[in-house]
Amino acid sequence: MSVFTAAADQSLCAPLSVLGKDVTVPLVTGGEVTYAALDYAASAPALQRVWDDVAAYAPYYGSVHRGAGYLSQLSTDLFENSRATVAEFLGCRADDQVIFTRSTTDSLNLLAAVVPADCQVFVYETEHHASLLPWRDARVTYLNAPRTPAQAVETLERALADREPYGSALVCVTGASNVTGELWPVKELAAAAHAHGARIVLDAAQLAPHHPVDIAELDVDWVAFSGHKLYAPFGSGVLAGRADWLQEADPYLAGGGASRKVARRTDGGVDVEWHSTAARHEAGSPNVIGVYSIASACKALTEAGFDGLVAREQHLVSTVRAGLAGIPEVKVLSLFGDDAPRVGVISFVVEGWNSSHFAAALSAEYGIGVRDGLFCAHPLVRTLLGSDPQEVGECGAPEAEPGELSLNAIRVSFGAGTPDEHIERFVRAVKELVSKGAQWKYRTEDGRCVPDRGAAQL
Amino acid sequence: MSVFTAAADQSLCAPLSVLGKDVTVPLVTGGEVTYAALDYAASAPALQRVWDDVAAYAPYYGSVHRGAGYLSQLSTDLFENSRATVAEFLGCRADDQVIFTRSTTDSLNLLAAVVPADCQVFVYETEHHASLLPWRDARVTYLNAPRTPAQAVETLERALADREPYGSALVCVTGASNVTGELWPVKELAAAAHAHGARIVLDAAQLAPHHPVDIAELDVDWVAFSGHKLYAPFGSGVLAGRADWLQEADPYLAGGGASRKVARRTDGGVDVEWHSTAARHEAGSPNVIGVYSIASACKALTEAGFDGLVAREQHLVSTVRAGLAGIPEVKVLSLFGDDAPRVGVISFVVEGWNSSHFAAALSAEYGIGVRDGLFCAHPLVRTLLGSDPQEVGECGAPEAEPGELSLNAIRVSFGAGTPDEHIERFVRAVKELVSKGAQWKYRTEDGRCVPDRGAAQL
Repeated sequence: MSVFTAAADQSLCAPLSVLGKDVTVPLVTGGEVTYAALDYAASAPALQRVWDDVAAYAPYYGSVHRGAGYLSQLSTDLFENSRATVAEFLGCRADDQVIFTRSTTDSLNLLAAVVPADCQVFVYETEHHASLLPWRDARVTYLNAPRTPAQAVETLERALADREPYGSALVCVTGASNVTGELWPVKELAAAAHAHGARIVLDAAQLAPHHPVDIAELDVDWVAFSGHKLYAPFGSGVLAGRADWLQEADPYLAGGGASRKVARRTDGGVDVEWHSTAARHEAGSPNVIGVYSIASACKALTEAGFDGLVAREQHLVSTVRAGLAGIPEVKVLSLFGDDAPRVGVISFVVEGWNSSHFAAALSAEYGIGVRDGLFCAHPLVRTLLGSDPQEVGECGAPEAEPGELSLNAIRVSFGAGTPDEHIERFVRAVKELVSKGAQWKYRTEDGRCVPDRGAAQL
Repeated sequence: MSVFTAAADQSLCAPLSVLGKDVTVPLVTGGEVTYAALDYAASAPALQRVWDDVAAYAPYYGSVHRGAGYLSQLSTDLFENSRATVAEFLGCRADDQVIFTRSTTDSLNLLAAVVPADCQVFVYETEHHASLLPWRDARVTYLNAPRTPAQAVETLERALADREPYGSALVCVTGASNVTGELWPVKELAAAAHAHGARIVLDAAQLAPHHPVDIAELDVDWVAFSGHKLYAPFGSGVLAGRADWLQEADPYLAGGGASRKVARRTDGGVDVEWHSTAARHEAGSPNVIGVYSIASACKALTEAGFDGLVAREQHLVSTVRAGLAGIPEVKVLSLFGDDAPRVGVISFVVEGWNSSHFAAALSAEYGIGVRDGLFCAHPLVRTLLGSDPQEVGECGAPEAEPGELSLNAIRVSFGAGTPDEHIERFVRAVKELVSKGAQWKYRTEDGRCVPDRGAAQL
């Protein structure tokens, strides 16, 4: 990933301003502290610039596409210009389509709905559920977890070469793991896929917010990502790439906007002519504000200098990793090993701690928001924890009593809006919790881990 | 519809404050004027209260469901409390589910995805495409346009009684037409459906913003509506109603959030256990801001006094209808006749005018935003215009030269934020355009009707 090398030479830029950066939260131990949002991998705060753009536009909001009024035409232009901005951000080829969805999950479900009937799908068991599960009518081959990027490529090449019949195929792979943050060898996997007559879709949900994504340079067929992880939490996502499968398939949603002409037939039925452009899969009134917020975020990241943001985030990654490495009780989860390049997403378990209690203590005693659970990537987390695949638990629920090794993990994640102080506080908090224990007891109530206010302070 | 009667006695309340109410737009004839947004049926401006709520929440935005941080828990509570608010707004029964979608179109596509395999669907040809088209795998009976509410009920009863086999059936009907604004006899249709062992879904996209909807009182099985027509244009919609079909069907989207447990099998496949709650159909990170904005709008309408808003809107409806009735060249489209109760949605054609040119002139010379076209209800508009069903045109594109009778129509629509002045300006503008003609020429460019700036002023 060239930008990681390039970025190393740059001086570190300041964090981008995000909403909520001054929000304070109460501590169970007394007082208030600025909230440290370290769950970017689940959903990131809005960039201040994105919010400002949305707020400036909101009074001019109007119905798009067929409204004759001034604000309707302005809103239609804004919507379609946003499509062009996203295409530019992703380095789309001239004939790629950019389709606005609600999220990465929605984008991959859309792609699953348009794969040809005979298409075989290849997906690593290490993927997020959004990549693992949507391929309902297709024959899916789940590939075992590789332990090196090279092994990932070999595994895929072998599976594609051996496929029976040697027909239409699609590979679905993440750009950066939502559990380990590790980068996958996307360009090499794309080359392998194409060498074997397959197509490839990049799940860039965790990559796009942290690293430039160039669809043409990576030579992937499609890219999917979510606005809400890209500092634009207004309900929109993107699927961008090859138009042919999209144009040939039934519309994802049936309804207005997707239909060009509808007429009763003399036999009582209805004839429909569908659009062949992006509108084919965007039935219903579009989420103009959501779409515009994504375009605003794309511009903001580009204009801030993505290389500088990467360099800054890599500095934070190093700080967290160095801090955790100094705590023997902490085990960081990794598929590809210490040297693998990664984004600001790091998962770990702490010996002797229930991960949910640990995450609750980080919140209640330090004002730090992380996530605990299986991160909607159950097979991967269980592989990394070495737990029995049958000991499955509800996503994120506490699964072990304090003192046992947790069957779920803790994830810290950050990005362009994260100040050094949040990372420093996090490392200090982990050290203190491990060495001194929590100041309060925690218990599970309605599936949520909370300070046990009924109990005496420890 | 009892509220229409009840409302008549109430004094008229002021319009609710909406975003954009002070926005001015340039006129082609010179100067600027406050924009009159009269395309509410396509998409309504945000209530100021909704915007204020969103803006107050935005700094507290956090990942929902499994985040351990303070803002994540606050956001999760906000999200689930919004579900409860919507349930209350709709008068949901205790065991109804409220599922958040992206729009009415999405809600009806979701319902279409969960109807039992042998279910027959009954839908009037007069419906919006979102209600006409999603029933892909079901056997659909399209019912001819009734010309009275009583005929609608008779038509449905006959079709249901005659169905072969007399098995599972679903009726889909609008509460208020998106073309004529006329109310459909929902309660009577629901009774007819249930008497014949069928279920019924109410498309309340055009009803909910204009009239209280009580799912239990109407005795419908499901209700669908969109936030963006309910003064909450942030990308979310609702499907609310019976849980059984929803719980029994495959998840609408496959991915995280919908899946409770995922594990590799020893044969290499993957086992999935899905949620049975609303989460089953809400895979992916939810649009928290969109959902919260809907809840905010529900509260705002309720607290403002929905009966008073209805009374005010009925006053505006009367003003428009009286004004248009005084212009012989104007033909108002109606299915059920002059006496039918209706919401603030009125479509018409003007003799001698291309509807797209007329709408363009309302915008360019009066700063009024209406809509022209077939309103994603092609069969209905063609029935009302008496045009040949085969003379189908692209939704909304100009289809006749000036001087001919237009094959598309003009729609004016309004609601809780519309001041009297917009309605008065609209009526005056129609009168002036009809009596004096437009001051500019208009031409079609890239599918959009624009003032012909190259031509001399007429």
